[in-house]
Amino acid sequence: MDLPRRLDGEEPIYRQIYHGLREAIDVGRLAADDRLPSTRHLAVRLGVSRNVVLLAYAQLEAEGCVVGRLGSGTYVSRDLPERRLAPAPSRRGASPEPELSLSAFGRRLTGHDPAWTHEASGAARWDFTVGRLARADFPARDWQRALREAARSSNLEYAEPEGLTELRRLVLRYLTMSRGVVADLEQVVITTGMRQGYDLTLRLLVDPGERVVLEEPGFPPVAAWTTAHGAEVLRVDVDAEGLRPDSLAEIDRARLAYLTPSHQFPTGAILSLPRRVAVLDWARRAGCALFEDDYDAEFQYAVRPIPALQGLAPGSVIYAGSVAKVLSPALRIGYLVVPRGLVEAYRAVKRGADRQTSTLLQRALACFMADGSYERHLRRQRARYRARREALVGALEKTFGGDVLVRGVQAGLQVLVSFPELSANLEPTLVRRAESAGVRVEGAAACYASPPADSSLLLGFAAMSEAEIGEGIRRLADVVAEVTITTAR
Amino acid sequence: MDLPRRLDGEEPIYRQIYHGLREAIDVGRLAADDRLPSTRHLAVRLGVSRNVVLLAYAQLEAEGCVVGRLGSGTYVSRDLPERRLAPAPSRRGASPEPELSLSAFGRRLTGHDPAWTHEASGAARWDFTVGRLARADFPARDWQRALREAARSSNLEYAEPEGLTELRRLVLRYLTMSRGVVADLEQVVITTGMRQGYDLTLRLLVDPGERVVLEEPGFPPVAAWTTAHGAEVLRVDVDAEGLRPDSLAEIDRARLAYLTPSHQFPTGAILSLPRRVAVLDWARRAGCALFEDDYDAEFQYAVRPIPALQGLAPGSVIYAGSVAKVLSPALRIGYLVVPRGLVEAYRAVKRGADRQTSTLLQRALACFMADGSYERHLRRQRARYRARREALVGALEKTFGGDVLVRGVQAGLQVLVSFPELSANLEPTLVRRAESAGVRVEGAAACYASPPADSSLLLGFAAMSEAEIGEGIRRLADVVAEVTITTAR
Repeated sequence: MDLPRRLDGEEPIYRQIYHGLREAIDVGRLAADDRLPSTRHLAVRLGVSRNVVLLAYAQLEAEGCVVGRLGSGTYVSRDLPERRLAPAPSRRGASPEPELSLSAFGRRLTGHDPAWTHEASGAARWDFTVGRLARADFPARDWQRALREAARSSNLEYAEPEGLTELRRLVLRYLTMSRGVVADLEQVVITTGMRQGYDLTLRLLVDPGERVVLEEPGFPPVAAWTTAHGAEVLRVDVDAEGLRPDSLAEIDRARLAYLTPSHQFPTGAILSLPRRVAVLDWARRAGCALFEDDYDAEFQYAVRPIPALQGLAPGSVIYAGSVAKVLSPALRIGYLVVPRGLVEAYRAVKRGADRQTSTLLQRALACFMADGSYERHLRRQRARYRARREALVGALEKTFGGDVLVRGVQAGLQVLVSFPELSANLEPTLVRRAESAGVRVEGAAACYASPPADSSLLLGFAAMSEAEIGEGIRRLADVVAEVTITTAR
Repeated sequence: MDLPRRLDGEEPIYRQIYHGLREAIDVGRLAADDRLPSTRHLAVRLGVSRNVVLLAYAQLEAEGCVVGRLGSGTYVSRDLPERRLAPAPSRRGASPEPELSLSAFGRRLTGHDPAWTHEASGAARWDFTVGRLARADFPARDWQRALREAARSSNLEYAEPEGLTELRRLVLRYLTMSRGVVADLEQVVITTGMRQGYDLTLRLLVDPGERVVLEEPGFPPVAAWTTAHGAEVLRVDVDAEGLRPDSLAEIDRARLAYLTPSHQFPTGAILSLPRRVAVLDWARRAGCALFEDDYDAEFQYAVRPIPALQGLAPGSVIYAGSVAKVLSPALRIGYLVVPRGLVEAYRAVKRGADRQTSTLLQRALACFMADGSYERHLRRQRARYRARREALVGALEKTFGGDVLVRGVQAGLQVLVSFPELSANLEPTLVRRAESAGVRVEGAAACYASPPADSSLLLGFAAMSEAEIGEGIRRLADVVAEVTITTAR
């Protein structure tokens, strides 16, 4: 317990100790039943006589703030007297501290927080939140084993900023085999999740005022973050075949385009092969880098999975993936495959941004991949998600028939459902009433820069059983019917 | 195995498969003894007939690239024929990809990589590398228990960007009690290590072209990163009492000052109380934020530890700490205590930078702190480091006597030793010859913007036993003697 605000030495030492503890209790930094340090320990630490500390404790006890328990120590009282909630005002006349002002980036960020609804709230009864996975699916035993092995072998060593060679090799092999990625080992960088990959890329390639192309509609946090970065955001429409290259043609001087070719977010469109070629041609001519967010490419339900764009143009594409959809979004571990000419720059920016991704997590993931657990888990999940997707599509078909438009079913872990009967301004009502009925859904409006005509909902199906999915959709249908009737009156 | 470079369909499918695998082998993405996917599996995945895959494998086998093992599968051969090291040139006439150019930040970064010598190389026999901890000291059992508990309870849930409430509460209690930090819970932000804390702060408070004050000498990665950010770096001299406030007085329009008041890096000076008051007065008048890097404040050897600057001016100071010196620098988990007015901005910038720090690591650290393991480990380490520090100071005294200047012994895990007999230009020779003798030390010259007169070495003593420290210093003394004699000739 140090008492930094008493430097003048004018107040007796026991009062200083008393004030410090009293304030900690008043503002709740010390809570009911917390144990105070022993008087002997505190006296040694502060370099004062034990009597002085005893005096301070006695004063606190006299005021009912603490209670001594025989042979056990001194504890914060359960019944605190007239507890103040705000911190005590500073007692002597230090000049007031100035408000610190934000940088231009900080000010832009204030209006463009890269947050998204529901990202961290507790689960609902029928939870269609995008990105949520099922607890029961988590490969707890295999992951625990990997973690144990990792903790045994590596807590102390720094890794290189680009990550452990062992893990990068396993990631590259996986990406080569399953995603058609074409790269040398040095091009693989382990990140603290996909968002960091995009942030590092923005910083390395785009100056404030320069142009970045985003998909319309697109992933809201990326749009907010790109705007906060100071880039001029240009939006290119997406249709059933993905991004429209004819709209790209009109754009010049773009530095970066953020794309989700495998499963466009949120429409679920898969960028067609002719369009891939057109996009790459445009990027080459324009000297524009492409950021390929392959966020749920592990799950493709067509017979022949579409490989990554990166393999077609390894010098133009920054490929980004993570374990967010396979293991957990909360582990925060992902990877980039970057063009050869940018390897050194990525090493340096990663080093400055957070030095490296946790060695423990990297080693655990490496163990998990090396012993085949990753592939095994992936196979299991592919089967499960296929079944859940079919349950969802079936329930939507059965419940809504031709009244809704369902998109994005060929890949990934969510679909987009549009309600032509409900205009877009009803979307918030729909989402709110669904939540009241125990059904959590995400409205798609936030994904659009220019509001769409209809209400649309994103339905993630990864976290629920087939039965729950069916029941959730039935309840959602009731809500939709209710909103439709209410607004028809 | 996807084969993205074969889109035109002009080449037979088996050739496309063959080419994809052949290239993977040629560039080493598939290494000797790696197993190829089973032909059946690959055929299903690619949506082609199994015969086509068999044909491709046969071709590879004919060329000696792969070997079939009966009943076990097909493996990459140990004796690869005329293996190419570079990737095969692209085969058809795609237009060449452009070199991607860097942003202004990226270009500055190229000349200011925030790297520092030895950061990630293997251990030397007598290793005085700053920041290295002893493997044997790591509280493996308690940490494993915490990790197990964390993995049981939390792999899947997102946390808020500022971190788990439970962990933030424990960190705040610890900082209140041991560092005199004054803050409410909302002001605590969990980071992916100290570097991220500084990076987020730079971005939120400093625009390119604005002024940042650094200590001279100071921590090289921070200087490099600040320069790469585009800030104008102003350096303020440090003497035996720490930063000199008289030099500060001449500075106006500074936005941020990076300080190490508890144990100045690298001189080890502890900022005196009158100077603390002077620095805070200057910061208030100048409207300058102070970044307090309390990097090894857990280890103070004086009777009365100096509390953090933050407690004196919670509205002006961004306080940063981490578990790097207590547990491990490679875990990548730290914390900030930020002024109340900046809480929302930090939440937003953290969200964009990496969404949140790993929930698993946060929960593990919370378990480790909650059950008392953290405090227990800290107490143990304090005693150990006190003994090692005494061994080091004793060995330096005995070996060099009055020939060297030893600084920074009152706190932390390293000391700075200057050799008045050896001019600064001999420092690289000293470091190199010590390395050859098995003694790894860090030269201090990199910490200076204006080169000092003498050779100085940073000696970290955390990773070695007392006996090893003694032997390391004896061997270092031989090297110093040798360099002195050589250069006197």
